[in-house]
Amino acid sequence: MSLHGTYDPDNIFAKIIRGEIPAVKVFEDDQVLAFMDVFPQSRGHMLVISKTSRARNLLEAEPKTLGRLIGATQKAAAAVAAALKPDGVVVTQFNGAPAGQTVFHLHFHVIPRYEGEALGRHGAAWRGHGRCRSPQDPGRDDRGRALGGPVADGAVGGDDQGSQLNGFGDVVHHPGRQA
Amino acid sequence: MSLHGTYDPDNIFAKIIRGEIPAVKVFEDDQVLAFMDVFPQSRGHMLVISKTSRARNLLEAEPKTLGRLIGATQKAAAAVAAALKPDGVVVTQFNGAPAGQTVFHLHFHVIPRYEGEALGRHGAAWRGHGRCRSPQDPGRDDRGRALGGPVADGAVGGDDQGSQLNGFGDVVHHPGRQA
Repeated sequence: MSLHGTYDPDNIFAKIIRGEIPAVKVFEDDQVLAFMDVFPQSRGHMLVISKTSRARNLLEAEPKTLGRLIGATQKAAAAVAAALKPDGVVVTQFNGAPAGQTVFHLHFHVIPRYEGEALGRHGAAWRGHGRCRSPQDPGRDDRGRALGGPVADGAVGGDDQGSQLNGFGDVVHHPGRQA
Repeated sequence: MSLHGTYDPDNIFAKIIRGEIPAVKVFEDDQVLAFMDVFPQSRGHMLVISKTSRARNLLEAEPKTLGRLIGATQKAAAAVAAALKPDGVVVTQFNGAPAGQTVFHLHFHVIPRYEGEALGRHGAAWRGHGRCRSPQDPGRDDRGRALGGPVADGAVGGDDQGSQLNGFGDVVHHPGRQA
């Protein structure tokens, strides 16, 4: 089952780390990277990954990796709280396909919540600054296709929030919209 | 807004830590505690908290607290994976009421996922070893009432899975069913 397996060095996050695929990076250092989710469930949805570990999920993470990663996740949450003033922030981390994981490189989601705004389904389009689409809305964001097809859980890329998050923490890259 | 505020030392998790309210503990040390969620969303749903920090949420957590907490969360995920053989494990952490937080003492949920079994709504009853109730099912677990009323997010207590998880890690307490 997908909770156990071997690391695929060609997963989409590994390609981002190697620079083979663009992403809207919010901050990074030699160990970790935070970037915008291409299929955001809300404004400011970010992903946080390790740049050095080959852990597929939480079960496989080395203690040092895990410490760095949760520190970066906290930093991402603080950045988005300061920049976008959400009413709440959800952190999720999926292990195994039945848990919702589709990219098998350990990652944390940082998902701002706004009072009165429903959470979009991951993979469904969120456009601009309005409300999330409902899960019933069949509309999809095309940005994933530029990356080789739809990616449901934690895809690369970003949206306009990347720029709003600049200035918080050690932002080192902001290549802009990728699609 | 509830994302920001002051720590309430009489929150339900603080009472568990002080031993004023019983809980089905899976493991604990001088820093952290993992125990069964009284309103599990699936078999083996656990909560992981710091015993020493007064952080209400991720934003307020001290680096050392956070490192200990994510380590314990990993351990809880590994324990439940070994004991209950789920097909996946979801880790969630809510910050602020609009994000789903109702107990304002920083905590991580560790929620096993089983192929073909829907995730129960948090706060809706899960009974025994069958499937989760659907969100439409109005049935509620009464155990929360013994604690002063329903608690939607991360309540105390447990279910039969506590015993199944014994033997993994440094289990130090297992007082049994609380209700």
